[in-house]
Order: sequence, then structure tokens, then C-alpha cells
Amino acid sequence: MKQVYLDHGATTPVNPDVAAAMIACLQDHFGNPSSLHGFGRDAKQFLDEARTNVAALIGAHPEEIIFTSGGTEADNMAILGVARAMRKKGNHVITSAVEHHAVLDTCLALQKEGFEITVLPVDAYGQVHIDDFERALREETVLVTIMHANNEVGTIQPIKEIARMAKAKGIIVHTDAVQSVGKIPVDVNELGVDLLSVSAHKIYGPKGIGCLYVRKGTKMLPLMYGGGQERQRRPGTENMPGIVGFGVAAAIAARELPAEMDRLTKLRDRLIAGLLALPAVRLNGHPTERVSINVNACFHYIEGEALLLALDMRGIAASSGSACSAGSMDPSYVLLAMGIPPEIARGSLRLTLGRGTTAEQIDYVLGVIAEITEKLRAMSPLYNPNKG
Amino acid sequence: MKQVYLDHGATTPVNPDVAAAMIACLQDHFGNPSSLHGFGRDAKQFLDEARTNVAALIGAHPEEIIFTSGGTEADNMAILGVARAMRKKGNHVITSAVEHHAVLDTCLALQKEGFEITVLPVDAYGQVHIDDFERALREETVLVTIMHANNEVGTIQPIKEIARMAKAKGIIVHTDAVQSVGKIPVDVNELGVDLLSVSAHKIYGPKGIGCLYVRKGTKMLPLMYGGGQERQRRPGTENMPGIVGFGVAAAIAARELPAEMDRLTKLRDRLIAGLLALPAVRLNGHPTERVSINVNACFHYIEGEALLLALDMRGIAASSGSACSAGSMDPSYVLLAMGIPPEIARGSLRLTLGRGTTAEQIDYVLGVIAEITEKLRAMSPLYNPNKG
Repeated sequence: MKQVYLDHGATTPVNPDVAAAMIACLQDHFGNPSSLHGFGRDAKQFLDEARTNVAALIGAHPEEIIFTSGGTEADNMAILGVARAMRKKGNHVITSAVEHHAVLDTCLALQKEGFEITVLPVDAYGQVHIDDFERALREETVLVTIMHANNEVGTIQPIKEIARMAKAKGIIVHTDAVQSVGKIPVDVNELGVDLLSVSAHKIYGPKGIGCLYVRKGTKMLPLMYGGGQERQRRPGTENMPGIVGFGVAAAIAARELPAEMDRLTKLRDRLIAGLLALPAVRLNGHPTERVSINVNACFHYIEGEALLLALDMRGIAASSGSACSAGSMDPSYVLLAMGIPPEIARGSLRLTLGRGTTAEQIDYVLGVIAEITEKLRAMSPLYNPNKG
Repeated sequence: MKQVYLDHGATTPVNPDVAAAMIACLQDHFGNPSSLHGFGRDAKQFLDEARTNVAALIGAHPEEIIFTSGGTEADNMAILGVARAMRKKGNHVITSAVEHHAVLDTCLALQKEGFEITVLPVDAYGQVHIDDFERALREETVLVTIMHANNEVGTIQPIKEIARMAKAKGIIVHTDAVQSVGKIPVDVNELGVDLLSVSAHKIYGPKGIGCLYVRKGTKMLPLMYGGGQERQRRPGTENMPGIVGFGVAAAIAARELPAEMDRLTKLRDRLIAGLLALPAVRLNGHPTERVSINVNACFHYIEGEALLLALDMRGIAASSGSACSAGSMDPSYVLLAMGIPPEIARGSLRLTLGRGTTAEQIDYVLGVIAEITEKLRAMSPLYNPNKG
């Protein structure tokens, strides 16, 4: 059976060069980079090289990169670390309604510690409005955490404007860039943020590794305690195979980004046009201010899970939203925040493109979706083709 | 040049079968185990299999295994998670003076949060005394965290007795078993502990992955917030290559433990006997109640760093103590806690054996150490051979 993977927002295949570098690390360079002997110095070189490559991808200095176990740890470290360190200055944190759970749930945890959280609304495209942000700013605001691109609908947030306004008031700015790095140009200085989370497995690197960019001079408490690794900010023996793989993935992402972004944007728009030509479909998210890999649509009168299952049986891997919320029967909180009614939000489908995606695959998937949705609607008691 | 790696306490070479399983995971099974489609279900099978193997190594149920980014995160999760969850019941935690920094520094962090910490002393062999422990117990004691085997001197602690006494009073017991798992039989029910930390890279698995055993019903707060992975206890997309490698490493460790423990104990004792036959050497740690891989000795009138450097130049990888404290000029706090004077503690050398270690290597290393120590002492103004 033909296999089409359109769930690159959940995770990406590991690039063969990434895998090769990790294999070499596993087989020939097993030293602990903290060890002073030759095996340790050998490992330390690989650690330094990876850090340089990851820093270069986002325009940072290598010493501003703290390797973490992934995007979730990076988000937690940024939010809990800064808020707890700044508590004496103020207890107010601003976030948005469409953040990943790694941000939203961490903000809820801060609330239990006595912080006040403002959750900014979004418009019908999933975007935060800068005037809402301005109104939310308080004397006690110490941290803003708003994602760069949304994981479900791909909408890009006005981080540069948010950061400029926040920095003018001395507020620390974090952005979860897990879904934007490698898809659109991301430069920490251009964006003006203090902290930025990256995950390797979204850019054809391995799972279990990511990083937090921390601008020099940013005050934060660590999440964990132990050895002096990562400039005392993140203890524990470094995940060397993961870090080496992340470094190679970052170098490839930096090199391929311009051409891939262009290629995928065209494929994305071909997929969107094809879907919108079907009956009773609506596109979720912004028509243009969205990452090149993301398509999210609602199919009226159809349950998302039924659609996913039917696609899976035809060898097409997709999702209804975030993989991290998969299995939940609730409609997406991101779509609800965008004002989409629950009964429509339940029929959402996320198709996320990647390096292996071709025009032929897009056309094949469009054909299968047309066929499946027709069948599913025919079985739906709610559907009346004269009204669709 | 002949290369002899005697720093298995810092990290171990990755077993070829472990590497092969990780390579297959990286190349052919990249799915996100949270995804509902075929790629996700494929990954989920590997996740479940690894969990079963890791659980079996320590006599646990698979659902009691929480994968973490390593031993440090496991220690932090156990200590911070339980103490913070139990705060209303009491604010007293007991640990020992010879714990790894991942435990000691985490207890210090708890102190800043209002907890009282009792740091138990150790005897000249590095062992905690059960009567000291009994005296330290209070009405408000909620957690005991004492390591199973020491990372620097290999001394095994009386965890079973400690756990029995603590459990009788309803106190939660954690042990950092990073240095004992795979070296001596470790069974969570035999030990009677509620929480136990394991690191994969100490048992010929990859760096960046470990686990915390959490006995069913143990109350604890998470360290991080986000997706619902690991039964809501540890969010973030799972480190699949690491977990798969850990699973294979655990299966091999379980299979090879009895024979390896026997073989390494003999080699260890051959190395100890050879060192003690040299002038002005003392063995650190317990003569018999120590893990099979560990030899730690002090060479009077010699700086540990000079000895390490000379060994490194001869291709022999060793350490002065913990790799996590390497680079520090302070004498080992573990040796100081055992009553060894600072000027002697500075001359400490840790040699840790492993699967690749042979009798021939041991004899070679003994010859090199004899030669080097004679030369270094000849250069030392402190040394008088008639007194040595």
C-alpha cells in the first residue's frame, strides 16, 4: 500500500545524515564530555560543534544555547525559571489562548504558585492582537510567553512587535518556536526575544533533544539541580547522540530552508486549493501568515476521528490537531479559541507537509479525501447535500 | 598507543546491540508514539517493549517506569516531586553526605523552599549507619533519599534496612541506583523502596535517557507540565532512540549480570591487591561491600590531576572521582566525609572497570601506575621514601 506521511507537525523522519552522525557518535565517540581524558575531550569537541550549528540556525551565540530533553523542557525551563527568579519584581505573566500545553499548563502551575496569568484571546485566524497585548501589560508583568507559530493551525504570531513593546518595559520575552524553526527564518535578534524553545525532532533530528536559547544576562532559576553541565543551567550528562544529531539537523535546516520553504508553500497552497474545492470545507488559520508546512481544515458533518481512521486505512498519516493531545475526544481548544463552534471543530484535520512531500502525493491525498468525505457524509444523519 | 578505558563509572561504551536497535529506530521507526496512525502505533510498540525490559531489570511493573532524560532528572523528579507533594504532611527530608550532586543540590534547593534537611554522616568506609538514620527520623519526615552505591568509592549502602525502618513510619524512600543497577542485583521490592533512579549510559546504553521507578500510589508533583505522556507524570515527546537503546541495554544487563559481576569482582580485587602492594597507597571505600566495578585509592604525596594527566598520556582513561565534578580543584567531598584529610584526598584516583576490561589490561595499568607514581613522588618535595 502507498504510504503518505502528512504529519510532519507531530514529528519528522530522521534525516539520513543525522542518523549517520548519531551512529558514529554511538559507536566511536562514547566519552562523557565532562571527563578530562582523551575520550572525554573527544566527546567535548562534538558537543561544541553541535552547539555552534544549533546557535547558527537561530542567529545566537553558542554560549546562549542550553540543551534540553526537548521543546517541553525548554518551555518549562523558560517559564518556571524566569517567573520564579523574577517573583520579587512582579507576579504577572502574559500568554495566549492557543499555546501548546507545555506553555499553558506550565502557566497554570505558576498560578498555583501565586502568579497571575493573562491569557490573550486570538482572532478568527488564531492571531494575537497587539492592542490586546498592550492592554494586558501591567506594572507587575515579568514575563511574556507567546508561541512563534501555532502547532495546530500554523498561524504566525506578531512576536517582533510583542517583543519590542515588552522589552521597552523591561519585560522578559519567551517564544515557543518549535513549529517555526526550520520552516521560516528565525533569528533571535531580529525577533528581539530573550528566550526561544527549539525541538530537534520537528526538524528531521532525533526525539528527546531540544534547546532553550537564553539571551546573555537573562536571570532564571534552574528546573533541576546537579552537576555543572550547560553553564550550571541544566545539569546531567549530556545527551550526546541526541545533541550530535540535533547539530547536523540544524546545519541541514539552515542550508535548505529558503528552497524548502518556497517548495512547501506551493505544495501547501495546492493542497489548500484542492480541499476548498470540495464541498463544506473550511480552512482553519491564516490564509498566508502560516508556516509553509501546515494545512488545517474542518469538514462539516464529519467526525475528525472517523476521517483519520479512514485515511490511516489508506496509508495516509495525518492528525486532528496536536499529537500531544491525540486520543482526547474534546474538540481542539485552539479551534474553539478561534471562535469555531465545537460541532465543526470536531471535524478538523491537520495535514503537515515535509521534505518527503511531493505534488503527486498531494494530488493522491486530495483524491482519497474527496472519496472518503463523500462516503462519510453519506452515512451522516446531519448532512443534507442541498445545504452543504 | 594502547587505549585502556577504566572510567566506566563516568560512562560506558554503547553496546553494539544497543546501537543497532537505535539505528533501526532512527532509520525505520520515526513515528511519534502519541500519534494514532500506523507510524505512531509502530513507535508505541517499541516504547512498550523497552518499558517492559527496563522494568524487568529492577523487578518493577512496566507502568511504574517513568522515562526521564537521565539519572539527574530522575533524582530531581523524585526529590522535588515527593517533597513538594507532601509538604502539608511534613517538611523534613533525610539524605547522606556522600550523595551525588543531583541529590545533594536538590535537597539544598528544597531547603530554600522551607524544608529541613538532615545530612547523615558516613563512616570511614563511606557507609551510613542505621542507628544514625533512626535518630534522624522525625514526626515531620516525609522523604528519605540515600543512594544505593556511591559513584566515587563504590560503597553499598544498607538501603533495605533503611527502607524497612522508614516504611514502618509511612515515610517515602528514594534511592539513586545509577551506580548499582547492572552491577549488583537490584530489585525494588527486595529493597523496599518507593522510588529508584536509573541511568542508561552507565549500563552500556545511550546518554540522555534514564528512568524513575515510581511505586504505584506514590504521591508526587511533576517537575514539568505539558502533554499527557508517561501517565501524566513526565510530559514531552518520548526520546524514542534513547528509550529503545535503554530497553536493549537493560535486557543485556539482566542477562549478563551474574557472570559479569563475578568476573569483574575478581579483576577489581586483582587491581586493588596490585595497588596496595605499591608504597603509600590507601584504598578508599569498603573492602568488600562495594560494587564490582569500583576501585578508588589515594596516592600519598601525589596530586590526583597530575596522576590523571600522566595516565591519559599513556592512553589510560581514569578519573579523580565523579565526572560531574571534573575540573574542580577541590578535594572530593565524598572522601572528606569519610574522614580522609584534604591533602590526601587530593591524591585520589578512581578506576572503574567494565565489560571490556581484561586481566591483561589490569596488569598493564598496574605497571604504568607503579612507574608514574614513582616518578611523580621523586618530583614531590613532600615525599621522603624512608617514611612512605
